[in-house]
Amino acid sequence: MTTQKDSPFAAMQSLGKTISLYTSILQVLEWDQETYMPSKSIDVRSDQTELLSGFIHKQKTSASFKKALSRLCNLETGEIIQKDLSLAEKSAVRLWHKHWKEDSKIPASFVKLWAKTSSASLHAWDQAKKSADFKIFAPHLQKMVTLCQKKAKLLGYKEHPYDALLDMYEPGMTVAKLTPLFAELKTSLMHILQNVQKAHKAPFVDIAKSFDPEVQMRLGKELLNALGFSEEISRLDLSSHPFCIGIHPTDTRMTTRIFKDNLVSHIFSVLHESGHGLYNTQLPIEFYGTPVCEPLSYGVDESQSRLWETLIGRNKPFWKFFYPVLQKTFPGELGSIQLQDFYRSVNKVEPSFIRVEADEVTYCLHIILRFEIEKGLIEGSLKVKDIPSVWNQKMKESFGITPSNDSEGCLQDIHWAMGSLGYFPTYALGNLLAAQLYETMKQEMPDLEKQIEEGRFTNIRAWLKENIHQKGKIYETEELILAVTRSPLSSKPYIRYLQNKYGELYS
Amino acid sequence: MTTQKDSPFAAMQSLGKTISLYTSILQVLEWDQETYMPSKSIDVRSDQTELLSGFIHKQKTSASFKKALSRLCNLETGEIIQKDLSLAEKSAVRLWHKHWKEDSKIPASFVKLWAKTSSASLHAWDQAKKSADFKIFAPHLQKMVTLCQKKAKLLGYKEHPYDALLDMYEPGMTVAKLTPLFAELKTSLMHILQNVQKAHKAPFVDIAKSFDPEVQMRLGKELLNALGFSEEISRLDLSSHPFCIGIHPTDTRMTTRIFKDNLVSHIFSVLHESGHGLYNTQLPIEFYGTPVCEPLSYGVDESQSRLWETLIGRNKPFWKFFYPVLQKTFPGELGSIQLQDFYRSVNKVEPSFIRVEADEVTYCLHIILRFEIEKGLIEGSLKVKDIPSVWNQKMKESFGITPSNDSEGCLQDIHWAMGSLGYFPTYALGNLLAAQLYETMKQEMPDLEKQIEEGRFTNIRAWLKENIHQKGKIYETEELILAVTRSPLSSKPYIRYLQNKYGELYS
Repeated sequence: MTTQKDSPFAAMQSLGKTISLYTSILQVLEWDQETYMPSKSIDVRSDQTELLSGFIHKQKTSASFKKALSRLCNLETGEIIQKDLSLAEKSAVRLWHKHWKEDSKIPASFVKLWAKTSSASLHAWDQAKKSADFKIFAPHLQKMVTLCQKKAKLLGYKEHPYDALLDMYEPGMTVAKLTPLFAELKTSLMHILQNVQKAHKAPFVDIAKSFDPEVQMRLGKELLNALGFSEEISRLDLSSHPFCIGIHPTDTRMTTRIFKDNLVSHIFSVLHESGHGLYNTQLPIEFYGTPVCEPLSYGVDESQSRLWETLIGRNKPFWKFFYPVLQKTFPGELGSIQLQDFYRSVNKVEPSFIRVEADEVTYCLHIILRFEIEKGLIEGSLKVKDIPSVWNQKMKESFGITPSNDSEGCLQDIHWAMGSLGYFPTYALGNLLAAQLYETMKQEMPDLEKQIEEGRFTNIRAWLKENIHQKGKIYETEELILAVTRSPLSSKPYIRYLQNKYGELYS
Repeated sequence: MTTQKDSPFAAMQSLGKTISLYTSILQVLEWDQETYMPSKSIDVRSDQTELLSGFIHKQKTSASFKKALSRLCNLETGEIIQKDLSLAEKSAVRLWHKHWKEDSKIPASFVKLWAKTSSASLHAWDQAKKSADFKIFAPHLQKMVTLCQKKAKLLGYKEHPYDALLDMYEPGMTVAKLTPLFAELKTSLMHILQNVQKAHKAPFVDIAKSFDPEVQMRLGKELLNALGFSEEISRLDLSSHPFCIGIHPTDTRMTTRIFKDNLVSHIFSVLHESGHGLYNTQLPIEFYGTPVCEPLSYGVDESQSRLWETLIGRNKPFWKFFYPVLQKTFPGELGSIQLQDFYRSVNKVEPSFIRVEADEVTYCLHIILRFEIEKGLIEGSLKVKDIPSVWNQKMKESFGITPSNDSEGCLQDIHWAMGSLGYFPTYALGNLLAAQLYETMKQEMPDLEKQIEEGRFTNIRAWLKENIHQKGKIYETEELILAVTRSPLSSKPYIRYLQNKYGELYS
């Protein structure tokens, strides 16, 4: 960095570092809550996180923050006034200003109301899901939708209120861009699904044996080790839902969940979280304290997890490397199952009700369904009370199946209860981006699959670091993807990938 | 509580609660650092704790804290001006004022200098201990002694500068009180030790078998469960040195360390930390946010751990209950060893170099040696350079043995490197108090040992809760001990206990 120690940029980064450190403390609390915290201390944990979150918010909107920012840019327009900034520094200023503007658009009273409403909503959703009764959740969801509409208004948008929500997770993304992208994707996926369903299928091997949970855990850690993770800067633990928290590039915490009879669920969780984790360990640490030292967007972050989980993890080269390890670890359970049969089993395509259990072909159809509903709710063309019937009708159209109740239908995900409308599309974008990046990587490293087969991941890690991770938030998503893959964001590479793979598997 | 929600006391408690919550967050970070934190994130962890500690200090010395306090008492004299406070509330005000006064006597520049000097000192101590070379540590220790003298002066004292340091760990304790107490204790312990050494000793059974660490850990958790700990409000983990952190009465975290060949070391660690842990879970939670909801002093806190570790844990009734569990868990290793032989083995008395490995008879002699040296350093009658020779000479006098080098002599403990002069005496006080409390408990529950034999700990927990834990910091140590045991703090119960026990063991 060329920045002087007492420059306006350095002063701002120093303030930012304090905020980043407090945020990282909050992340330790979150990780602890999901892993080791004694259950009855949940009340004091809520007090702790509420206090710390409030304090962080205060710092982000403080007079000293505003003053430091005003030395770098025009607070009204965001125009950079500080001379001689590098490209990365300019991006940092742009994002500081953007986030500061957003934070100052949301009044504290709204933040409080949101916290209170979503807390009650989450509780109602939990009850509703348990008793498969959407009516319990409906009035709360209505309040969350109203709050989301209000938030969109507060944040502002040019064309569609949903754009304001999308932008929180995927900056720059809009309904206008997503609509044709998802339309093309939907058509192609439904076409592939129909072909698969028409194909003659040899019977699948049963891989649901009994796998010792402790041995599974050890295997997960060995896998992380093989991928190049050091225990000096990362961990793997258990939690009820797998996640990855990037506390700092030197402190990455991943979790998995283990079922006795489902070994591959655990392996795919580890691969998925390792994608997020690798991103975190390879961020541009010299920009710690600025928004540049953060994952670019939810979609790009998801592209990293899906790249490892699916493009690498659900394909033959990886299993040529890792299946012998599995067989050696569980000789009684897997010794007599051939690689090809195992590989087919973990790539079974089938319409199903639950998003998180979906295969590669149907996964994005689940997302598109949610996108269509969310968009309708926000623009007012769909009423909350009509969600169950619209959901079931869309399931019938896309998958040919109908949920037997709302728990396996519109109540399955937590996102709406939290008010995270606008989040779902980033899951689909993650898949598209992963395929697009993998295709480019393969062009640039023609022996890529040989490397994977041999368990050599150093070059992949280096490629991702150089092209994605080290860039942090310097560029915007579409800009970065164009620069790295030399084509705009598209669903074509993903479709090509699926057609090739499943064409072969279901010939 | 009779306090009104908007009373000056409630306002102060609300401020105090915020500080307690931030402190509890710091404790989560400390626990994490010693248990699960990836090693290379130590730098960012130091940044996090420094930031949070500084923020907490700022809050304790803030204008709003001062103002809230001034509504309760005269800031100069501490005289309580708020009417109608309960006894506990008056204690809270007295302690808020005492701590606030102390904090305002220590300038920020001194806190900074202390942090910097002790950090370098700890590093030098580590090096010195590794190479058994006191000269490496001496100049740093000299600086820490000078800082301790300065601190004593800043805090103020009536008779002896060491009193100011003692008071930080054991409020109200002084050199004038400790000197006769320790003199009597030393004479009696040396007498018991001589008798033991003269006695005819049957050979000891070797209990250093190979015990599976995972099974040891499971056993430790079972023991906690038997003692009445719920996993809903407490945990047991591994760390390099056992400790207990009371994050909140609903979140108590204990650690142990496990050696394959030393099962009892682990069991005694669990018992020791469970004593601290139980204290924390039974504090008067209605006073959370005030100093009343805290352990009374380091000595009283240690009395709780030693009560469970030694008075209960190192005696026959406990092993009548727990040895069969050990034998069942490790039939191959312990099946053929009789209870009486096992019991004798874990109570072997022998002069040794290392404090933390000392038996019940010699332990306090280690402490008194350190007290004499610390006192000399602070009053200036002993020079840092003379520590090794004085240490060895005192070892010879009290134990009849001479360390072969300073690593097993004056370099063994971390306390001086941290500047924690004044801390050691509380370890001995803990032993004396434990024996005194146990003696009273036994008088009040004549079937106490039968309860222990049968693994029934409910009444003991209730007795400790009622007499010690629930009182928090309402009373001062000597006041509470007098009230509970109807006699002043004394070494006599401890000596009686040792004479009875070891008279029988070494008849």
